[in-house]
Amino acid sequence: SSATAPIQATLFPGDGIGPEIAESVKQVFRAAEVPIEWEEHYVGDQMDPRTQSFLTWESLESVRRNRVGLKGPMATPIGKGHRSLNLTLRKELNLYANVRPCNSLPGYKTRYDDVNLITIRENTEGEYSGLEHQVVRGVVESLKIITRQASLRVAEYAFHYAKTHGRERVSAIHKANIMQKTDGLFLKCCREVAEKYPDITYEEVVIDNCCMMLVKNPALFDVLVMPNLYGDIISDLCAGLVGGLGLTPSCNIGEGGIALAEAVHGSAPDIAGKNMANPTALLLSAVAMLRHLELHDKAERIQNAILNTIAEGKYRTADLGGKSTTTDFTKAICDHL
Amino acid sequence: SSATAPIQATLFPGDGIGPEIAESVKQVFRAAEVPIEWEEHYVGDQMDPRTQSFLTWESLESVRRNRVGLKGPMATPIGKGHRSLNLTLRKELNLYANVRPCNSLPGYKTRYDDVNLITIRENTEGEYSGLEHQVVRGVVESLKIITRQASLRVAEYAFHYAKTHGRERVSAIHKANIMQKTDGLFLKCCREVAEKYPDITYEEVVIDNCCMMLVKNPALFDVLVMPNLYGDIISDLCAGLVGGLGLTPSCNIGEGGIALAEAVHGSAPDIAGKNMANPTALLLSAVAMLRHLELHDKAERIQNAILNTIAEGKYRTADLGGKSTTTDFTKAICDHL
Ligand SMILES: CC(C)[C@H](C(=O)O)[C@@H](O)C(=O)O
Ligand SMILES: CC(C)[C@H](C(=O)O)[C@@H](O)C(=O)O
Repeated sequence: SSATAPIQATLFPGDGIGPEIAESVKQVFRAAEVPIEWEEHYVGDQMDPRTQSFLTWESLESVRRNRVGLKGPMATPIGKGHRSLNLTLRKELNLYANVRPCNSLPGYKTRYDDVNLITIRENTEGEYSGLEHQVVRGVVESLKIITRQASLRVAEYAFHYAKTHGRERVSAIHKANIMQKTDGLFLKCCREVAEKYPDITYEEVVIDNCCMMLVKNPALFDVLVMPNLYGDIISDLCAGLVGGLGLTPSCNIGEGGIALAEAVHGSAPDIAGKNMANPTALLLSAVAMLRHLELHDKAERIQNAILNTIAEGKYRTADLGGKSTTTDFTKAICDHL
Repeated sequence: SSATAPIQATLFPGDGIGPEIAESVKQVFRAAEVPIEWEEHYVGDQMDPRTQSFLTWESLESVRRNRVGLKGPMATPIGKGHRSLNLTLRKELNLYANVRPCNSLPGYKTRYDDVNLITIRENTEGEYSGLEHQVVRGVVESLKIITRQASLRVAEYAFHYAKTHGRERVSAIHKANIMQKTDGLFLKCCREVAEKYPDITYEEVVIDNCCMMLVKNPALFDVLVMPNLYGDIISDLCAGLVGGLGLTPSCNIGEGGIALAEAVHGSAPDIAGKNMANPTALLLSAVAMLRHLELHDKAERIQNAILNTIAEGKYRTADLGGKSTTTDFTKAICDHL
């Protein structure tokens, strides 16, 4: 595939440790001869009136044009009058599904060794509507919005994902015993879609019970689909089962086939610039991006090199109890290719 | 203390396995000579117009009079026009704080052996407002209500609890980065109360991060206080760490000093009447009730008997991998008193 014209992809290195872990991805992609040409975009240092955030209009245009991108951590600068960078990306690019595979890493021991699940989070509405106000002094309310359109869309994505990835079961996570109308509508949409996929087992699990079962026995689950806030909570919980956000990939799917893969951990300003950061989450997200582009051979080769390096245990960054620098760990991965 | 006049307490055996596990509590209390006289109330078989639920007015009056009670699982009958039994109790008795201690049980192995934390949940508002409606076809909304009054009240309870129970840290759990007004008000109230307790360390943790840290290292936490839905989710997650809702107590605190302890697991209709149910959650809840009544000697003696029976491992019910009946397990506890 390296003989064909290179594919343009947007790269947001992001803040803090972002540039270092993005450099790691670039090195590994070069070593694996991935036919991708990065278009790099940094977060600006002032508000762009066209995006109402520190993200530049050009950077959004780049993702829209390339339809594929990779994103490091972005720290939203404190202050009023502009929007969170992550939320701006989701809204502007209509990134309606956040897909987070969660797998135990061979050789990296946690309390769980059987984790193999995917959370699919509705990423545009729900508790993230931004609609809040004070009713009277001392009484405030937030609106949670659930729409048929967004619920069907993410449910479709989840069942399609399950089918095309050899998964057997989709669990819709909800609290419809309390929020009968909002979560009830979400479930209704999931049921409608489930009927079109008779080979996939469909079940509904209340969120509190789901969290209890996840920590007792994550093997009970396969693909989980849910409204925005539950997805935020459960995807982090699941990441915790296998070691944390430093080790798990994430990919956002937008209308029109856009895919923006991202490391969802923070920008870790305390270790930024010190060559200490673990690039695994961004590397695995980059692998997810390659799979989205159907560059399966490259994806497989890189993923194996990452997993083998971690499993071998000789080169590990400090967060995993090792002493390697980011560059040494990256070099070890390249050597494993 | 058995020489003084007995204390009246309301008992709701509840549905399904409820009567069997309530019987277990009664036996253990008799064996330990606890000076309590139970006033038993069952859920009715039709709606009581005065409570708009299947709970009778008399049963609510009993809790109001006694100010202390114990409750088994209640299955809300399906149908329209009446309210959930659990929610009715919370609303009618103004049970504003749900306190759930979560401790590893010696001798009962889970993936975690270091769990010792308390979740304190605001129990009356937030996402449980019941305010929902369809905006237009295919668009529905739920209102989350946060008030200064309820937030201060539960924060006060949490800090007071921490102080009087030798706890060092209170963590307020929130998603104020997204719900700035509602969760922001909750945090503001927690901060106000925290200032009055300079000896207690106060911190704020975002709910997604909290769930990740809980599954990675629950020893990071001590007392957690949070709005209603987060409490619902996190208290079940924590129960999962030590084995599930069959093993963890719960106590609801109401305005005017009411305490209604309860087993929060389900009514398990599949094993009801088969002498198979595990009464541990209700027994430990009954112990919490005794502590509320400051009957600390009795509480300690019964708790030790329960824990020793489980630790010994000779008598365990099926859910814990054993073969004992409810009555054998109960007898073993009585023998350990
Ligand atoms: C940073 C925050 C706004 C974001 C969210 O709540 O969605 C994060 O937790 C995530 O999961 O990407
Ligand atoms: C049964 C349900 C309404 C209840 C709740 O959501 O509060 C339960 O999960 C609980 O925690 O007591």
